Amino acid sequence: LAKFKAMKELRNLNIGILGGGQLGRMLSQAGVPLNVKLAHLDPDANCPASPYSKQHVIGSFKNSREVREFGKDKDIVSVEIEEVAVEALEEIEALGVKVYPQPNVLQTIRDKGIQKQFYYDNNLPTMPFKLFQSASELLKSIEAKETTLPFVQKSRRFGYDGQGVRVIKTTEDLNDLLDTPCITEELCNMDLEISVLVARSSKGEVKTWDPVEMVFDPTLCYPARISEEISKKATELAVKTAEAFGIIGILAVEMFLTAEGELIINECAPRPHNSGHQTIESSVTSQYEQHIRAITGLPLGNTDIKVPSTMVNLIGEEGFSGEAKFIGLDKALEIPGVKVHDYGKAETRPFRKMGHVTITDQNIEEALKKAAKVKQVLKVES
Amino acid sequence: LAKFKAMKELRNLNIGILGGGQLGRMLSQAGVPLNVKLAHLDPDANCPASPYSKQHVIGSFKNSREVREFGKDKDIVSVEIEEVAVEALEEIEALGVKVYPQPNVLQTIRDKGIQKQFYYDNNLPTMPFKLFQSASELLKSIEAKETTLPFVQKSRRFGYDGQGVRVIKTTEDLNDLLDTPCITEELCNMDLEISVLVARSSKGEVKTWDPVEMVFDPTLCYPARISEEISKKATELAVKTAEAFGIIGILAVEMFLTAEGELIINECAPRPHNSGHQTIESSVTSQYEQHIRAITGLPLGNTDIKVPSTMVNLIGEEGFSGEAKFIGLDKALEIPGVKVHDYGKAETRPFRKMGHVTITDQNIEEALKKAAKVKQVLKVES
Repeated sequence: LAKFKAMKELRNLNIGILGGGQLGRMLSQAGVPLNVKLAHLDPDANCPASPYSKQHVIGSFKNSREVREFGKDKDIVSVEIEEVAVEALEEIEALGVKVYPQPNVLQTIRDKGIQKQFYYDNNLPTMPFKLFQSASELLKSIEAKETTLPFVQKSRRFGYDGQGVRVIKTTEDLNDLLDTPCITEELCNMDLEISVLVARSSKGEVKTWDPVEMVFDPTLCYPARISEEISKKATELAVKTAEAFGIIGILAVEMFLTAEGELIINECAPRPHNSGHQTIESSVTSQYEQHIRAITGLPLGNTDIKVPSTMVNLIGEEGFSGEAKFIGLDKALEIPGVKVHDYGKAETRPFRKMGHVTITDQNIEEALKKAAKVKQVLKVES
Repeated sequence: LAKFKAMKELRNLNIGILGGGQLGRMLSQAGVPLNVKLAHLDPDANCPASPYSKQHVIGSFKNSREVREFGKDKDIVSVEIEEVAVEALEEIEALGVKVYPQPNVLQTIRDKGIQKQFYYDNNLPTMPFKLFQSASELLKSIEAKETTLPFVQKSRRFGYDGQGVRVIKTTEDLNDLLDTPCITEELCNMDLEISVLVARSSKGEVKTWDPVEMVFDPTLCYPARISEEISKKATELAVKTAEAFGIIGILAVEMFLTAEGELIINECAPRPHNSGHQTIESSVTSQYEQHIRAITGLPLGNTDIKVPSTMVNLIGEEGFSGEAKFIGLDKALEIPGVKVHDYGKAETRPFRKMGHVTITDQNIEEALKKAAKVKQVLKVES
């Protein structure tokens, strides 16, 4: 009988998102033309998604009871963060709510130990790793010469935006070890870091965007300045990874390109990702619109590049806390192709992500020059 | 002292829009990245802008008292429709509220008689015209052979989306005359209808987009398929018109290109316009973002084309009234480059504007073919 049940109109779907940060806000923004309005569960009454939310429930996406309450009457529940009460998602899934990405994908990805093992089990290239329960267990392994410097330590859980990562090169660096369940990895001899975004819909359709080159000042280069051959290989690897997870939604696959031309998976994120902000301006279909298409079972959109771009994060300046002021906004907006995204956070703090700027230009080197200028003129202070 | 007054942060500006239809909704959408949230005055509790409004005041933008109440505490008031209580806008302007477009521009444009006279007074090319108070006065002029068929009759006020216009070719057509204060114009021997959007900021900065070619099935072709010379002439005429009005905000200048290669102004709209919907997807800066930049005194954005496009209006099908259903949405979204804009109107009625579809393609002829397909597969019914 179920298959004869009339499909709900897209505009009448009840979609809930766990988390109401900037990714939740940009999902809402992508929903406007499609007339898809999203509900959010977020503890912060003034979270970035709140002003555009269909229903903002103030509560924790890490709390099982609150996730269950929020999700049980939705048609579809999705996330903008992987650290959520997965067990509650399994419960609402059993009630018939569609949960995308699926709870098992969240469970695999949010624990870097399980995530790494998944790559090994599925013959997906990744750096060798070891598991530890604590800093002292790791120190013992170093004393016993079972683990040798240099290495990277990553906390198994709760890592985000480069937090929960230590690069240990010298014995002095050992003072900085994280005392938490963790993995260690050999340092990768890499030439370049790239990210490939993949969308996979509830109908099994798959689309990718051109690889993104991760650079550190500014943040990225889109498309990546790599050969067509490497681009093709990276895309194939990303699709293989998405298919192995069976994910429904967006998967961001971060990879290293080694000096030997090999591609190694660093880590994945099961949601729209920082490395895809620029798809809003650059791509026929943004990662945010695509996520909505994927989880609602719509056909996936074309992902061709309309214009190349780079992206700069807007981080709260050191030494400023309190009501945020965007200093130099006029000067930044004077630069052709500059698109400022203010996430609407009332308060700034040192290093808090307050927004980002996408800079489009038919010439990517010009875009990078403009980005350097944006970094000079635009500051978030108080 | 005023010039030393601290500029309000963009994110703290209190901006009100008279009207909360689809143009108001798309202005709100453009405000999301800039963290500019707009208030709206609209009589319909479920108007398209309402779900994204900072403050939706349910009231009439044609009512002086309601406009004054709505506008008096705003920093800036703008419009998405020209038929508003202009006298109230003059009053709130006197209180220090910035009103863009300026009340005198609205007054000139909303009355086609005054608008036409303005073109004559400013040496802007337009078709010769006559003024009449009523159908009977016009009929007398025809009897006296002072007015000869064929001609176009346009109501002086309240014309919108082709309403309030009659093309009178035969004596039989005279039965359809509008009985209202009106103008008549000679029929223009035109090759093509084009529209040029101009933005002029409160700082006096001016930007234009490439001319748009108005076609009727689908709706437009962007950029227009005209010579560079005509394009340049049309742009110069549009800028001259915007400067003559002194408008702050977006001005859409609709023109005829005659068989002799002359450009003739048909009419203007002092706001974001139907002929600029596609700038959302096609242009580095959309008309909606530009309108916000213009009225807030920000630098105007680059208007280069990222990818050509066409646009199809989504009109309520004949024979259907009631809860709207977008039939064939899946089939439309399968077509690469199709962007559906559902204005979120709950109820459909025959010929009601329910949304539009932009179709981008590097090859404009392909875009037009896709648009024809969209028209076949996507229908708004109930």
